Amino acid sequence: MTPPSISRYPVPKLDALPDDIRARMLEVQEKAGFIPNVFVALAHRPDEFRAFFAYHDALMLRDSGVTKAEREMIVVAVAGANDCLYCFVAHGAILRIYAKNPLVADQVGVNYRKADITPRQRAMLAFALKVAERSGEIDEADYAALREHGFDDEDIWDIGNISAFFCLSNRMANLIALRPNDEFYLLGRVPKQK
Amino acid sequence: MTPPSISRYPVPKLDALPDDIRARMLEVQEKAGFIPNVFVALAHRPDEFRAFFAYHDALMLRDSGVTKAEREMIVVAVAGANDCLYCFVAHGAILRIYAKNPLVADQVGVNYRKADITPRQRAMLAFALKVAERSGEIDEADYAALREHGFDDEDIWDIGNISAFFCLSNRMANLIALRPNDEFYLLGRVPKQK
Amino acid sequence: MTPPSISRYPVPKLDALPDDIRARMLEVQEKAGFIPNVFVALAHRPDEFRAFFAYHDALMLRDSGVTKAEREMIVVAVAGANDCLYCFVAHGAILRIYAKNPLVADQVGVNYRKADITPRQRAMLAFALKVAERSGEIDEADYAALREHGFDDEDIWDIGNISAFFCLSNRMANLIALRPNDEFYLLGRVPKQK
Amino acid sequence: MTPPSISRYPVPKLDALPDDIRARMLEVQEKAGFIPNVFVALAHRPDEFRAFFAYHDALMLRDSGVTKAEREMIVVAVAGANDCLYCFVAHGAILRIYAKNPLVADQVGVNYRKADITPRQRAMLAFALKVAERSGEIDEADYAALREHGFDDEDIWDIGNISAFFCLSNRMANLIALRPNDEFYLLGRVPKQK
Amino acid sequence: MTPPSISRYPVPKLDALPDDIRARMLEVQEKAGFIPNVFVALAHRPDEFRAFFAYHDALMLRDSGVTKAEREMIVVAVAGANDCLYCFVAHGAILRIYAKNPLVADQVGVNYRKADITPRQRAMLAFALKVAERSGEIDEADYAALREHGFDDEDIWDIGNISAFFCLSNRMANLIALRPNDEFYLLGRVPKQK
Amino acid sequence: MTPPSISRYPVPKLDALPDDIRARMLEVQEKAGFIPNVFVALAHRPDEFRAFFAYHDALMLRDSGVTKAEREMIVVAVAGANDCLYCFVAHGAILRIYAKNPLVADQVGVNYRKADITPRQRAMLAFALKVAERSGEIDEADYAALREHGFDDEDIWDIGNISAFFCLSNRMANLIALRPNDEFYLLGRVPKQK
Repeated sequence: MTPPSISRYPVPKLDALPDDIRARMLEVQEKAGFIPNVFVALAHRPDEFRAFFAYHDALMLRDSGVTKAEREMIVVAVAGANDCLYCFVAHGAILRIYAKNPLVADQVGVNYRKADITPRQRAMLAFALKVAERSGEIDEADYAALREHGFDDEDIWDIGNISAFFCLSNRMANLIALRPNDEFYLLGRVPKQK
Repeated sequence: MTPPSISRYPVPKLDALPDDIRARMLEVQEKAGFIPNVFVALAHRPDEFRAFFAYHDALMLRDSGVTKAEREMIVVAVAGANDCLYCFVAHGAILRIYAKNPLVADQVGVNYRKADITPRQRAMLAFALKVAERSGEIDEADYAALREHGFDDEDIWDIGNISAFFCLSNRMANLIALRPNDEFYLLGRVPKQK
Repeated sequence: MTPPSISRYPVPKLDALPDDIRARMLEVQEKAGFIPNVFVALAHRPDEFRAFFAYHDALMLRDSGVTKAEREMIVVAVAGANDCLYCFVAHGAILRIYAKNPLVADQVGVNYRKADITPRQRAMLAFALKVAERSGEIDEADYAALREHGFDDEDIWDIGNISAFFCLSNRMANLIALRPNDEFYLLGRVPKQK
Repeated sequence: MTPPSISRYPVPKLDALPDDIRARMLEVQEKAGFIPNVFVALAHRPDEFRAFFAYHDALMLRDSGVTKAEREMIVVAVAGANDCLYCFVAHGAILRIYAKNPLVADQVGVNYRKADITPRQRAMLAFALKVAERSGEIDEADYAALREHGFDDEDIWDIGNISAFFCLSNRMANLIALRPNDEFYLLGRVPKQK
Repeated sequence: MTPPSISRYPVPKLDALPDDIRARMLEVQEKAGFIPNVFVALAHRPDEFRAFFAYHDALMLRDSGVTKAEREMIVVAVAGANDCLYCFVAHGAILRIYAKNPLVADQVGVNYRKADITPRQRAMLAFALKVAERSGEIDEADYAALREHGFDDEDIWDIGNISAFFCLSNRMANLIALRPNDEFYLLGRVPKQK
Repeated sequence: MTPPSISRYPVPKLDALPDDIRARMLEVQEKAGFIPNVFVALAHRPDEFRAFFAYHDALMLRDSGVTKAEREMIVVAVAGANDCLYCFVAHGAILRIYAKNPLVADQVGVNYRKADITPRQRAMLAFALKVAERSGEIDEADYAALREHGFDDEDIWDIGNISAFFCLSNRMANLIALRPNDEFYLLGRVPKQK
């Protein structure tokens, strides 16, 4: 059986790619043990690839009052709202690893109100989903609700921009029928062997 | 740390339950290795418990042109549509086991259009979701679409009734904040040790 | 002219039915003067019939802080939300009779906010409709709102479970195109002749 | 017990009204045996009253390929979509009388797909509801679908304009909490005594 | 190139029209410099034309606590919600002129929450849009919110009825594919030459 | 009167910005005569600024079977769907200039079905809006519909990715309450003086 395609679009060979893009892929392969399909599929358009990951890194790697695990919670909740299989599964794995919690990704992706998270995190996800689904209605009351939980305005920018960025990402994944690597489904679910 | 509650309602002790209900629980425990929380939580109301599982068994155990794995696909897709964490996680596990496929549950639960399933199964899930979300608009064209894929009218009843039954089940799980057993999250994801 | 069919599915003859199911039908015929079509149509599947009515009776006949008329209000409001003609018409009749009020069924079915009911009943119906339409968003605030009107947690279970059960029932009626008996339309609208 | 109010707004006394408006009311009272509350409540604003009923009459009394019973079907289906109790109940009565059919109003108001009507009437109601709910998406294909059932362009204007007019009317009834006269609920349900 | 049609329906010649309708058109032409297409297109049905504009004038010309510019804000916001190009463009022009503000029409039509308007006007538009989109849910709390901003009950009737009237108007414009006159797009955007 | 703020967040001074960002602003100022507020507001976060505009340029400046005017049509239609005032107004101006058409931006932003555009452009906008609103449902039939109008798969990527990118952009603009420069409202509406 031929393996299912990872994208509706042609997938470039690793050695046909510009050096910087190939280097990025090898770096993530080194760390994760495999190359996530989003890298391979988006490399079809090198300029967009570079901008996409520059934006991603600017949001996901910066210092913030929102922890890295919390940022991945936002990604997974937004993926659920946008019916995006790739981000639900791939970022679900990252969330499980960052949070060291094998349950939280499915909880947050299906219904964050039922997740084992703090009230502060619930408020964060409610805001992220409002940005994803009804951003035109965001108003001062939404900001105030987050400030009550100790988020400052830069944190709120982070929450909103991560939600917005993955609204782009989810749509691209749906557009090109991006397939999650099989590896993601299990990552972070089983305690590491010592 | 106290473990999180499995229900908003009081959870009966096993030995305080009527014999038939306790017997049912011990039977499932024997088979699964643990008692799924839906049994424990719904036992708060024995008469409703009996009717619920009688209905469940009538639909899920009967002979049908819809396989048991396909019936679980319906359950998981409907749980996704209804934001029901319990059924997404618990029936996701059952689906992985029945289908001997560690990926299909997340695929079907998040976006069945992206799942590794047959066109016949996609038509089945489209119908099941229409029953779940817009049943008032079901018409002859919907029946015709399923018959083209080889489903007969009794199969269509099964598909529709399973969707309808889990619309009840999802709402009860959401109402009482039913918590999935931790065991479900991993079941069927790792090949069994010989 | 042939009378319109009462179901998309074959309708069993009374004397071909299992004894317990036929007995149930004769009992309701004795009381109502006719056999409601839901009995006849669902008897196509005896096991599901038994579970369906066992569940129905467990919810609708038990002692509760929610009166029988109020339970029928829930059924009619949910039927309106689900575009279910059978339950709107059949339970509308039962509601008129239980409430001894010829107007309330249409009011509650079309727009409960305009009905001649108490604030407590309006809160009950708001909750029932949230269970029907957005059960994933039910939270402690919804429980608190009902407790303020004197409902205890068991009453809230009743309200929610009746809503959930008729979400199943409405979907089945829509699936099989269940036709209300003509008799229901007029029942409870005209004062009984002395 | 004081009778419930028929409007959120002051209701004018009959003898305080301008002559033409009082005459209109007496005329309808002569015919129906009572004055429908919409006349009384809207008379609070005589100029709007006159325009409202002039528009109503222009649409509902003109010669058309759409029968008077069919026009009332449109009104009742649109009232159902707009959760408008007044029009559902009052025009339900008129529909029953015009169609000499005690069942059709509830059928069309709750779910026209389940009503005892012709395929042509179903197409008409599908169009009327699209005008009510998504008029921005009306296109040539919608016109073509109606022409196939023998409606000409003037009939289509009638169908669309009746839907649009009652979208105004339903909103006004909801705005002022207009209460249907008790008489409407029973009208047309019982064969007239000879 | 033939100019695009202004309506799906035949457009009457000015000199074939009844005197009163032609007079109305010449009057508006005198004032505006051109005849807005809504006059020409609706004249296809003289009786409906008369009722439509009588209703329009009763609402838009009467004395009210809602200023004429505010009434046009309602029209433009409702047109945006109903995807009605004609009213968005034509009443956008009128709003710019009445408010002597070249920006406010686009602001209010796209997202009133971002418009340069007062909190009182924002509350007014929130109410108008609720009447347009969910009138069945209007309740006393909505009235109370407007009264807090100094609107009395007659003002609230005006706000609600203008919204309701343009829900009719928007649907008619969408039904007949009414085209805005080119002139409207620029009106009120450039300071008048002295 | 103080001018209204252009963002909920602090707006950096031009001379405090990194050289590359200031250079970009001066370049656009040179061309447009003013600095669009999106540059000024997003410069609050230089890294995100760079990624945002790199992505923007990769999509909007590349060679494509989708013309630059058509790409701006997508932006304006998506802005309308997302209630984003900034992009509706700013890209409306750019669209008017690129298309040399003072009417098309309002048409496409309010209801593209009523716009003076080609059937090919209507198909393009229907797809772009499906990506914006229901990307999880994109399937082969959507691709086929665009290919029938002569779009190839790279064009379809462009259409989809522009829609997706502005779903990000619209959410950011709504999040920070980004205010369009007053200049945009009039640009492209008046023929240039020779």
